[in-house]
This record gives sequence, structure tokens and C-alpha cells, in this order.
Amino acid sequence: MRILILGGDGYLGWPQALYLSQKGHEVAVFDNLARRQFDLRHGIDSLVPIFPMQRRIARWQALTGKTIAHYHGDMVDWEALSKVFQTFQPEAVVHFAQQRSAPFSMIDREHAVYTQQTNVVGTLNLLYAIKEFAPDCHLVKLGTMGEYGTPNIPIEEGYIEITHKGRTDTLPFPKQPGSFYHLSKVHDSHNIHFCCRVWGLRATDLNQGVVYGADTYETLLDPELATRFDYDQVYGTALNRFCAQAAVGHPLTIYGKGGQTRGCIHVKDTVRCIELAIENPAAPGEFRVFNQITEWFSVAQLAERVQRVGQKMGLDVQISHLPNPRVEKEEHFYEVVHTKLLDLGLEPHLLDDAEIERMISLSMEHRDRIDMGQIKPTVNWRATENEVEPTQTDAALLPAT
Amino acid sequence: MRILILGGDGYLGWPQALYLSQKGHEVAVFDNLARRQFDLRHGIDSLVPIFPMQRRIARWQALTGKTIAHYHGDMVDWEALSKVFQTFQPEAVVHFAQQRSAPFSMIDREHAVYTQQTNVVGTLNLLYAIKEFAPDCHLVKLGTMGEYGTPNIPIEEGYIEITHKGRTDTLPFPKQPGSFYHLSKVHDSHNIHFCCRVWGLRATDLNQGVVYGADTYETLLDPELATRFDYDQVYGTALNRFCAQAAVGHPLTIYGKGGQTRGCIHVKDTVRCIELAIENPAAPGEFRVFNQITEWFSVAQLAERVQRVGQKMGLDVQISHLPNPRVEKEEHFYEVVHTKLLDLGLEPHLLDDAEIERMISLSMEHRDRIDMGQIKPTVNWRATENEVEPTQTDAALLPAT
Repeated sequence: MRILILGGDGYLGWPQALYLSQKGHEVAVFDNLARRQFDLRHGIDSLVPIFPMQRRIARWQALTGKTIAHYHGDMVDWEALSKVFQTFQPEAVVHFAQQRSAPFSMIDREHAVYTQQTNVVGTLNLLYAIKEFAPDCHLVKLGTMGEYGTPNIPIEEGYIEITHKGRTDTLPFPKQPGSFYHLSKVHDSHNIHFCCRVWGLRATDLNQGVVYGADTYETLLDPELATRFDYDQVYGTALNRFCAQAAVGHPLTIYGKGGQTRGCIHVKDTVRCIELAIENPAAPGEFRVFNQITEWFSVAQLAERVQRVGQKMGLDVQISHLPNPRVEKEEHFYEVVHTKLLDLGLEPHLLDDAEIERMISLSMEHRDRIDMGQIKPTVNWRATENEVEPTQTDAALLPAT
Repeated sequence: MRILILGGDGYLGWPQALYLSQKGHEVAVFDNLARRQFDLRHGIDSLVPIFPMQRRIARWQALTGKTIAHYHGDMVDWEALSKVFQTFQPEAVVHFAQQRSAPFSMIDREHAVYTQQTNVVGTLNLLYAIKEFAPDCHLVKLGTMGEYGTPNIPIEEGYIEITHKGRTDTLPFPKQPGSFYHLSKVHDSHNIHFCCRVWGLRATDLNQGVVYGADTYETLLDPELATRFDYDQVYGTALNRFCAQAAVGHPLTIYGKGGQTRGCIHVKDTVRCIELAIENPAAPGEFRVFNQITEWFSVAQLAERVQRVGQKMGLDVQISHLPNPRVEKEEHFYEVVHTKLLDLGLEPHLLDDAEIERMISLSMEHRDRIDMGQIKPTVNWRATENEVEPTQTDAALLPAT
């Protein structure tokens, strides 16, 4: 099948491209390198070295004989996006090409506007590109479990049957997102749902949990195939960051009480979930939602597990509670229905000590690359001014308004 | 109280400014004249002549001795918006300054992107302006009943208590909007709700029904104080359009079966509802939702009432059913809770024959101004290409991407 990976240079997009290529699909990637540009601008880098796109694609071809087509472009640039649709004629499109950091979106007004404009307009362009050039193409869209927030009832997969005043309907599950980034994903979900209803497009919205893990079977084939691994306050997710902290003797930084509970998933399961969605596409007109998680943990539980494994490895691992820079419930009910991907055949890689040990070891191997100044949270949900100041070159990233 | 009316040049913004000025408030209006620019570009005009902003403000002052401050600017222009906040220091802000036509948003990709970008970024800028310059200011935001769509359960005022699997929570009412315009209002609602939760802003979201009526007590004081009256396919709402059609002998154009039911409200009640919201502000941190309607009708019921009144006036009024250009249910359950504004003291002006007669008479008085070519719907929800082509000058309206 011809599969287009939007955002194919990122933490998840790149392993996804390799995985689907390995499975025999014809894969193209489209990316504007925004994530690498952020690193350049802020003087930071992936803990694991990553290679230029051209080079890793060449390495993949040398190792496997398989080619991956590469398009450089931006989702908000209609000409670039429509050109790749007309040229490649995708049968499925996987959409990772978004500003994907909650702290980034909370830095200040410019970053909030940039996040929502980039994500919402990018997805609108994509919906029109599908409608115009590939109306039967199946859209597989990455959403986030953070769209739901933390309601006091179990979280269903996208819809909930409500009986109210003697009448019943199945309606979209109410959303309570917790940052301008999470909000942008909610906006996308509503826009995509509408286009399925009105234009008969087919779409799967994957509300993904926090992804952890440093590698997949494909990225492990060669160091030049590695995907990025972020440990910093803006892009590093909790478990990855804790492992990096344990490796360098930095206390594991829990925001607030640590009772915040989040759905989690290993990157190896992410790539498989997306394959399952592609192999079993939504019907024309269908807007389908899967909760793409395999288990859930509180932040404190994750920290304690990293501490325990680190201590077994002979490391001195401390835990420190920082004032919570976010506005969120620190103790709450959390229960998520996530059967649809299991029903399609997902066999989860659950979090075990070996995986944590692997991530700590990897962090120790690359510990010289860690910039301790990038770990402490400086982006505060409540503040008017945050310490991650837009630098002069930020303006280049922000579209004209 | 110092009250800022964003979009104070529009069909509703202008009567709102007069009404609050009449009540003794200190009123400022902010507008970019986008609505008048659309008329210029498409060679169309309000059925009732409207005067330049400067001139109608001067007329108001001559008649009443009251002044209205006037700022020209665009919501997506942060400098312009922050300047008015710093200068005027509003205690309440009423936000009408949006692209407000569903058909406009469905013309093509550019109009969809323009609608969501303008509305979402404008509101984001406003939220940051309140946070930064007037954190105690009460935001009164115009939403639409169209955010809810037509669920098979009664529509509550913004929230619904859900009991599910033995647990209970009160959550945002699920939304099923029916155009890119309606979607933009849903996006706004989520963004505003978040800022109330996280920053402690105070906001009232008014999910308004379809507004009808040509005048308020204030606009009637002098022809130079008139507000606009739209009868065309892009901006004309059903009842106003039917009255104009009856006046010129054009069949009343029902889209599809006509069983589509919509909440309605007279413009005289709109201005009062907003006053009630301002007089009884939301608490800090509160995101409050009112359903701003007084009654509801199917489109066919509205057409039949206009036909009956027109016939009493000696007119030959026909009804014609056109293929529905929209994608919507043409027969559905509809029941709306709308007690919060009544509890605050609203005394509704319900639709009566005298009001319909007044609108038909007004249309007859100005019948020479009606362009029959602007009535037939050419914007189709399903089409890739619509007949309202972006003209060369449209580019000026669309922000750079």
C-alpha cells in the first residue's frame, strides 16, 4: 500500500516509516524539520545522536534494499502538500506533522498562536487535499489521551452513549484538554469528524498516551537509523526524562504530588497500532476513535520504578517534588477503555524493568550529551512571562499574522 | 461600566453599542470593517442603507449627547488589540468580531482556513489581552446554538451531568457543529473554558440562536442609526431572507424538507441578554454558558408564517423547496433548555405577525436595493468548487500562511 507519513522525521514518524517499509509498504515521508530547527535555536539536541534524513534513508536502503521517498515541506503550505498528494497518490496517510509539546504551547501568546495555527490549518489543508486528490485515502491521525482530561467517569473510545431525560444518543465524548497544544488536537478531532460526516472521508483518530521507549526493532538495526530521544522540559515525556535524570545523578523531578495518572504506550506498540489501523481502515464517512494506550501509571509510580531499577544498577537515584508548573488535578480517578486495538490484534509490550534498564543504560552511554540546564521546568501554565524567551530567530518559525 | 464591543460595526454589534450607551455605560467599539469589505468586493449591500461608523456615532451624539469611542483594528493584530485594552481599560468586553457566516466558511479551502484562523487566533489574542491588561474584565463571547448540532437528547446550557458505569460527573455538553464556521465557535469555547480554568478569567459564552428583526428601540431613533439587514445566501438568516423574498415576489426558498429546527431570538432580546450577562458577571475562574434563544421553529414553519402574513398584506407569496446545499438532518428531535437568561430577568419578544409585517414592509420600502442574483444558494457543503469564486481582491482578506 502507498502510505504517506506526515512528520516522518520525528520521534515517532521515523520509526513508523521504517516499520511500514519493512512490512513491504511503499512509504513516503513529508516533514519541514521544525523539530530539528527548535533544537538548533535553543542549543539542545536529542540524547541519542540522529542522522540527517537523507543519510538515514540511504542507510535503510543499503541495509534492506527498500526505498523511502522523501518530501521536504510544511503542512500549512497548500502548494507543497497538494503536490505530494498528486505525485505520491497515497492510499493511507499518517499525520504526525504537528507542534507536539504542551509546554511549548504554554510559553507565551506567540507560541500558543503558532501551535494552534500550525496544527489546525495543517489539518484543514490535509482534509482538503484528501477530498480533492485522494478521497478514498484513509486518514490515520495522531491525537492524544490529553484531549479527554481527567473526568470522574471512565473514558470511552471517542463516543459515549448518554441517556438524558428519557432519551438516548451516542455522542462525542466530552473533552477537557489541559494546554493550548491539547486544545489544538481537540479542534482537529472536531474538524476531521465533520469532514467524515459531510464529505464521506474515512478517518481514524488515535488518542495516544504518553509514548516511552528509545527504539524499535528497525531503528536498532544500525546506529544511523536511531530515532530521537528527548529528556528536556519542553519535549521530554516523564519516563524518558526520568531515565535520563537517573543516568546523570539528577533527582527525578515530579511536578506536584505526582498522583497525575496518564495512559502510556511503548513506541514498539505505537508503530504496530498504526499498522493495525491501516490494515483495518475506517469505512467511508466513518470517524473512528481508538484509545492508543496499553496501561496507565501515576507520575509518582513511574519515578519509583525508575528509582528502583536505577538502584539495582548501583545508581544513587533521588526523587524531588517540584511546585507543579502545570494546572492539573494531582489526584484523580482514571480509567480508560482501550479494547479496540486489542480486538484488532495488538499484543502489548508492557513496561518492565528490562525496558527501564535499557533506557537508563542508553542515557548513561550518551550522558556527555545531556545539558542539565534543559531539565528544570521553566514554562509555567499560570505565568504571563515564561523563561524560555522567544529568541530573535523564533520569529522565523512563527507565521505572519 | 467601561464596555468594549468587538465587532461593533456589525448587524448585532452596532445596536449593542447603542443600547449599552443609552443605558449610561461608557462604550467603545473596535472593528476592522471586514463585513463592509465583503459587500464591496461582491457588489452587494445591506437591504437597509447603513451609514459610515464615524457618521452614525456623530448622529448618536447629536441626538443623545452620549459618546461612543471608535477604534479601527483587527483581532488578529495583537498590537492593535493590546493598544485598545491599554487605552480603554474595559471592565467588560463583548466579542462579536468574527467571520460569522456558515456558507462563507464552506466556499472553499481558503475561506475555511480564513474563518478558523481569524476566529481562533482573534479569540486567543483576546484571552491573552485580558490576562495581561485587564484580568478582572468579564468576557461576554458570542457563540452559537449550532455548536450543539441536533442531538437526540435535550440540549442543556453548556454542561451535562453524566452518570456512566456507576460514576457521575458534570462535563461539557458534546458538540456536533455543522460547518467550518460553527466549528470555529466550538474551538473558541474550548479555548476560553481552558483560560478560565487555568488563569482564573471570567467568561460567559452565549450560544445564540438565529437572530431576526430589523431594529431596536435605539436604531429606530433615526435612519442614520440603522443596522444592516442581510437577505443574501451568504449572510441572510432564514426569516430575514424570507421577508425580503416575500417583498419582491421571489418564492421563499426552503433548503430540503424544511424540518430543520433552529432556536431563534429577536435582536431586541439579544441586546438585553448581553446587558443581563454584563450586569450579572461570571465569577473569576468561571466559564458560564447560556443558551440565548427564546423559542424555536422549523424552517418550514417560518416560511409558512411569512407566507400567511404576506398574503394578508395582499402579496402573492410562493414557497419553493430547493435541494439542500447543506449537510444536515431535515427532520430531527429538538429541545433546548434556556432558563438561565429568563432567571436573570429576560422578558422575551416572541415572534408575532406584527414583526413579520414590519420586516416585509421594510423590505418593500427598500425593494429597489435587492439584487435577486444574491438569493439563490450557490455554496454547497459537499462540493469541491463553489460558485462564489474568490475574486482577485479576496486575497487581501486572507492572511498570509
